[in-house]
Parts: sequence; structure tokens; C-alpha cells
Amino acid sequence: MSRSVYAVIMAGGSGTRFWPASRGSRPKQLLPLAGGDLSLIAETVERIAPLVPSERVLVVTSELLAEATAAELSMLPPENILAEPLGRNTAPCVGWAAAHVRRRDPSAIMMVLPADHHIGDPETFRKTLATAIAAAADGALVTVGILPTRPETGYGYIEQGERISDGVYAVTRFVEKPDLARAEQFLASGGFVWNSGMFFFRADAVLAEFERQLPAMAAQLTEYDAAAKEGREAEVVRSTYASLESVSFDHGIMERAQRIAVVPGSFGWSDLGSWTTAYELASKDAAENAVRADGVLVDSSGCYVSAPNGKLVALVGLHDLVVVDTGDVLLVMPRERAQDVRAVVDVLKSRRDPRV
Amino acid sequence: MSRSVYAVIMAGGSGTRFWPASRGSRPKQLLPLAGGDLSLIAETVERIAPLVPSERVLVVTSELLAEATAAELSMLPPENILAEPLGRNTAPCVGWAAAHVRRRDPSAIMMVLPADHHIGDPETFRKTLATAIAAAADGALVTVGILPTRPETGYGYIEQGERISDGVYAVTRFVEKPDLARAEQFLASGGFVWNSGMFFFRADAVLAEFERQLPAMAAQLTEYDAAAKEGREAEVVRSTYASLESVSFDHGIMERAQRIAVVPGSFGWSDLGSWTTAYELASKDAAENAVRADGVLVDSSGCYVSAPNGKLVALVGLHDLVVVDTGDVLLVMPRERAQDVRAVVDVLKSRRDPRV
Repeated sequence: MSRSVYAVIMAGGSGTRFWPASRGSRPKQLLPLAGGDLSLIAETVERIAPLVPSERVLVVTSELLAEATAAELSMLPPENILAEPLGRNTAPCVGWAAAHVRRRDPSAIMMVLPADHHIGDPETFRKTLATAIAAAADGALVTVGILPTRPETGYGYIEQGERISDGVYAVTRFVEKPDLARAEQFLASGGFVWNSGMFFFRADAVLAEFERQLPAMAAQLTEYDAAAKEGREAEVVRSTYASLESVSFDHGIMERAQRIAVVPGSFGWSDLGSWTTAYELASKDAAENAVRADGVLVDSSGCYVSAPNGKLVALVGLHDLVVVDTGDVLLVMPRERAQDVRAVVDVLKSRRDPRV
Repeated sequence: MSRSVYAVIMAGGSGTRFWPASRGSRPKQLLPLAGGDLSLIAETVERIAPLVPSERVLVVTSELLAEATAAELSMLPPENILAEPLGRNTAPCVGWAAAHVRRRDPSAIMMVLPADHHIGDPETFRKTLATAIAAAADGALVTVGILPTRPETGYGYIEQGERISDGVYAVTRFVEKPDLARAEQFLASGGFVWNSGMFFFRADAVLAEFERQLPAMAAQLTEYDAAAKEGREAEVVRSTYASLESVSFDHGIMERAQRIAVVPGSFGWSDLGSWTTAYELASKDAAENAVRADGVLVDSSGCYVSAPNGKLVALVGLHDLVVVDTGDVLLVMPRERAQDVRAVVDVLKSRRDPRV
């Protein structure tokens, strides 16, 4: 039996690691950070288009971002944009989207994808997704795990268990972000993959888990269904969303779900965690400079330069710097200090500067 | 006998060392590079105001810059701005200005000053000027020499001879820019001063030297006098200025003048040769950053930052950089590479970029 497939794109994020390009009102997923012309969220939709037509792509974002997100994804029906009145972590987000899918087709399979990742090999990515979709058909909650390439301490890990079918494995356990020693062990021992935050399940299966593990939330979602029949969903969501438990989907549902599986994959995945990653993904000149500006670079190498159209950026004698000019803000820092953009953002927040 | 004193400010320069702040149409002397709000040329006029009233201040500049220069010096009568149709080095510039002064008062003393220098101690500067003015009263051509503070190879030197009067010395010889070894000798031996490009003489005395040493030029200047009586000076200058010999006043007149003298001085002089100098003159914060912008500097020191009003400039983990944002152009370089801004300008000229 072939089930219809929906995609739910989680796009409520508002990180600061790509400041000053990203702002509260224009976060990372709305920016073309992967080197092309498309925003990350538009790339996400385009990437899965061979698997899911746009009328079955739902996006969950915040009310603040709903308009800009809809404008960025003009191929989607407007009703496919779900606007959370406030962020309550990922469990309510997935649950609400699952309720929407269930209304349309209870046995449909839905995949849940982050809006702001980069995939270097979309073809292999789609093959991995097809495997995960197939594995979800009989009611399992499936995640895709990324084959690790370094002892990363910034991600959660999943330990694979026995093989269930081709490319599909049982899950032995979820592991929180490890310290470096444990991360090195995981990498050396094999059988551990990074938790990608991508999930695959039937709408009815995941909502059954909500009823079992988060019954109050499940009851609220049922009320949303009832309100939707009366055309009052937005109103009821706005008045009740804050009462939903703020918990991650991993922690609230996946980790203790009755039937879970993992599909390991390797497809040039990056969560685009900082300007350093943007540099790594960008095309570069002979001196390893990634220049997204009208640049004149003299005796300079390894620099990432971004500036508004028409602006001339001249560098002399500089190496491994990030230079980002957004018109109203200029940021300059060594590439290796990219995580410390947070220090600047903290200063601006403390002085209530609107340019955050 | 007290003679009236005129000032002639030479303001035709169009250097590139302060690019991108300086442009062909807005060179260094029109910019507030010394740390205050006034442009260098306005500071120059203000600095000598206790010695010379504005109606006796003449400015020689280019036609291209005449309007902007007049706007910058609104205290001057418009007829005091002399616009050269093209640059022919400094001898024609001084000669033409001397002709103007002679028309008003042949026995007046004129001082010739560059428009784009910085003086840290204006009071001592004016005392030095008063000494030079007095020394010029009897017909000598007088120059002010700067007591050297380092073995600079970028300036010409003047060797002092015997004492003529208090603070006034004969000139033994003019020396072209020396190599480092000779510059070190000059500094060690004493008796050598930097050629500042400031001159003091009676209008009739200097024009007598033009007649003796550059007779063709002197004849042309006399024609300008005749044309001026008919209200046709600008027209005649425009059609004949290109025919004047292009030679420096030092080389064409001073070096072989019959009576010359030098007044050594020390008054915090700087010719503001590069962004490095601008950094040195600017006020700095506790981390030795000179910030002329809305700056958020984290773990950064020794940086010079200039940006348009309202622009936020954030630096993280950077040291001894120059960051100049002019809106249409951004320049970033180590302070020690400031001379290499020329390399960028050369690239822009070769591609006929208008932003030079």
C-alpha cells in the first residue's frame, strides 16, 4: 500500500550565530547562507520536491516570522503555514503539525525536517528519506542519523541496535551531547550517529504516542481539531498555546516511544552552525577567499566576505577573517572566533539595540 | 615698519593615501582626519587666524575642487579662492598667488602653507611663524624646518648654517629624500631639519626671484596682472596655465634663491601621511582603539575604526587593524600595511572604477 507523504518543516528558529545577517525578524532559515541564491528554507522545500508536492508541505513557524516565511515560500498554499503564537520547543510544534496532517489523511506518513540545514548531496539525501519513509509505514517512529565525521560535542548521538531491514536499525539509546572523550569513543567504536532532528512517522502513530506520553498535549491538539471545524483554530491556538508543555520532541516522545528505528545516512549534511561553516560551504577563489561582494583583495587569503550589492570591499594583507556588512551593521572577526559573535549580540541586547 | 601679512594655502592635492575616505573629488585636506570635526584645511585657516584675518587668506586649489573648497571655507571672500585649471606643481601655484598679493600690497609678507598638515601645538607653531615672518621682512626667502624626531626617509632635509638672528639660520643646502643610513646620520649629527613646505617672503621679493630664475613664468604672471585689470584673468589663466613650466617651488626657486633662511621649529607637526598617522593622532580608548563609529569591540585593541553616522561596527578578537567604511566602500587592513592602500587604488584605476 502506498501512503501519501507530507513534509513538516520546522522553521521557528531565531538563532544569533549568523548575526548580523540574521536578525530576530529575519533568522538563518530565511537567508541564502549555503552559497546559492535561495534561502535555506526554500532550498529545503526544493530539495524534497521530488518526494513531496508543495501542497503537502507544511511549515511551522512563529507569528513574527509567518509573513516573511510565506513570502519566501510562495509555492505553498497559505494555509500550509502554521504560525505558533510563541515558541514551546519542538513537541507542541510536531504535535500540532501532526494534527493538521491527520485531518487531511490519518494514515499519511509525515517527515519532519529542520528548515535551516544544508545538504551537499541531495540525491543520496532523498534516497535516505525514501528508506525512512518506508520504515515508518508500519507505525514506527523513525529518525535519520548522520554518520559522524568528527568527534563533535555539539550534537546528540544515537546508538544503533540490530538491523531491522535494509538501511534500517533499531535504536539502542539516545545520548545527550557528550564531552570530547566520549565523542571520540563513539567515533572510534562505530554504531553511533548524530541526531539530525529529522523524523518520519504516520500521523496516527505519532499522535498515539502523544496520547500515551503527553496526554494533556494530545487532548489540546484534539481541541484544535474541533476548533478547526468551526473555523476558530487560530483563535483557540492563540489563547491556549502557552499552556502546552514546553518540551523537545526527542525528549518528550522519541526517547520513550514504543517502536523506534534509525536510518543512518551520509549526504553532506551540515547544520550551518556559524560563519565558519558558511565559509566552508562557499565557493572560493584561488587564495581560498569566499567573496560575496564586489571585492578587491590584495595579499589576503582564507577570508569570508559578504556585503550588499554594489558595495566595494577592499582587504589588504588579511587572512582567515570573516567580514560581513549588512548596510546598517559591519562585523569583522577571525574565522576561528565565529562562535563569539554571541558576545556582540549580548552587548547589543543589554543596551536594547534594535539591530539584533 | 609693520607690513601686512597674507597667507597662501596650497590646496590642490589629490592623494590616495586616505582612500576610501579621500577621493579625487574630496581629497585629504577636505576631510576631518586629525581627530576633530573640522577638515584639515579649515583647521589650517583657524590655526593662523590670530596672525592673518580671513580676508587676507588666499587658497590655491584646482577647478575640480574649487567649489567644495569654497564651501568648506565660507569665512573667506570668494575671490580669495584661486582655481588652477590643471596642476603644474608648486612653482606656478606660488607665483600666481604672489602676483595676487602683489596687486593688493607689493610689500606685504606672504606665508605659503600646505592645507593638509596637522599641528599638535598651535601656540608654538604661531610663534615660529612670527619669527619666520619677521625674518622675511628684509627680502629673504624663509622656510620653516621641522626638528626631526626619527630617521625619516620620506622627506627632504635642510642643513642649517650659521645663526642670523634669534631662531633664524642660514641654509647650507637642501637635501633630497635620503636613504636610511644618511637619514640616521642627519638625525645623529644635528643641524638638519625636515623641509616642511612652508615658505615666508615679501611678494615683491619672491617675484623678483621668479624674474631671475623662471623669467618665462614671471612674464606670464605679469600678463595675468594685466588681464585681471580687464576682468579677464580667469579666461587667460585657463588658456595659458598649461604652458607654465611644471616645477616645484623648492627646486625652481628656493634652492638657488639669493637670500634664504630657515627657522627651525618643533610644534607637533605631522603631514598625516597615512591611516597609520590618523590612528596615532586620534583619541583612543583604554584598549588603544580609535573608534569613530558606533563600535562594539570585543577582545580587540589598537584598531582604527571609522564608519558613517548610525552604522554599527562590531569587531571581535582583532588587533592593530584599520577599518574604514564610507558607505559605498569598506577598507580593512593591518595598520602596518596602510601604505599599501595604493595597491587597491591601482586596481580600481585599472578597471576605471569611479570610487577612486
